[in-house]
Amino acid sequence: MQYPEPLAKLIDSYMRLPGIGHKTAIRLAYFTVGMNKDDVKNFADALVSTKDKLKFCSICGNLTEEDPCEICRDPNRDRSKILVVEQSKDVMVMEQMKNYKGLYHVLHGVLSPIEGKGPEELNIKSLIKRLQKNESVNEVIIATNATPEGEATAMYLSKLIKPAGIKVTRLAHGLSVGSDIEYADNMTLYRAIKGRTQM
Amino acid sequence: MQYPEPLAKLIDSYMRLPGIGHKTAIRLAYFTVGMNKDDVKNFADALVSTKDKLKFCSICGNLTEEDPCEICRDPNRDRSKILVVEQSKDVMVMEQMKNYKGLYHVLHGVLSPIEGKGPEELNIKSLIKRLQKNESVNEVIIATNATPEGEATAMYLSKLIKPAGIKVTRLAHGLSVGSDIEYADNMTLYRAIKGRTQM
Repeated sequence: MQYPEPLAKLIDSYMRLPGIGHKTAIRLAYFTVGMNKDDVKNFADALVSTKDKLKFCSICGNLTEEDPCEICRDPNRDRSKILVVEQSKDVMVMEQMKNYKGLYHVLHGVLSPIEGKGPEELNIKSLIKRLQKNESVNEVIIATNATPEGEATAMYLSKLIKPAGIKVTRLAHGLSVGSDIEYADNMTLYRAIKGRTQM
Repeated sequence: MQYPEPLAKLIDSYMRLPGIGHKTAIRLAYFTVGMNKDDVKNFADALVSTKDKLKFCSICGNLTEEDPCEICRDPNRDRSKILVVEQSKDVMVMEQMKNYKGLYHVLHGVLSPIEGKGPEELNIKSLIKRLQKNESVNEVIIATNATPEGEATAMYLSKLIKPAGIKVTRLAHGLSVGSDIEYADNMTLYRAIKGRTQM
């Protein structure tokens, strides 16, 4: 006996999501059968409208319903700073901190020779155009991840932007707040020592 | 800044699934944005049709597109045996073993005084009716889980069915095939000793 067809298709769809294997997909599909009908409909609608209604902001590359995005449109943001992140979701993480009031730029990835991702595959050209057009920007904060690819991308951007006389900064690396030195890895400790500040 | 509305709704929908927390829901929602448009549409369609097209078989209670279900309709199944399981998904697990050719009955749960689940809340009445109507059934195999609730439900069913002169059996409990005695828990070992078979 096979799974009833709609269920088999749903299991297949769940399995396409990252981190969800066959057994979990089956569990989720059977759970869906027991869900409230409205909840299932809302879920299906949200899937379709996420794909249909969201686009990338033509200025910063962030995900948005309206172009330009909420942040690029907001007259109260500090237009002298652009914070560069790898992915749209990093923008939300920064926003949840509620302490950064400048603008953003989303690269949609990092330089990765292994995956064949060069500067042309990233949203870099539009960043350079923004800097050329907009003289009020005096600092570019690079917030790529602390991975080898993220570091390489940060270095590449810094070499590209610095000659134009714009300050380029990088997020501090060091110990997480609340963490034990005992459990920190060597590289983090090294960066924490190197980046030590005067008290 | 808030998440764009379709994304916020999608995160909320993902979070309603079991075992998916806030961070995972965010990750899945952003992953959805990057998915192929057809895949997203198929996912949404599968969700809706799983909910709309599937119903419970009026005979055995299994999930099906057509009533009665494929197994109840199949003239080649052994109609002298009914295997009783807790959930529809357990039917598929049994079917994948490919060694049982009898019929099924799905209880849709187990007796659980804590959750207020008594015999009326389970699909038991229709099982008794099946046994009364169908004189060819000579064995009911109870395959509820090896949990306290599953055991109690098995005991309850056995007391209900046995007086009618029908053989009631329970799945064997013992060591998993391929497992080490060293790692077996006390209860499993006890059941393995108690249920030992002659060689």
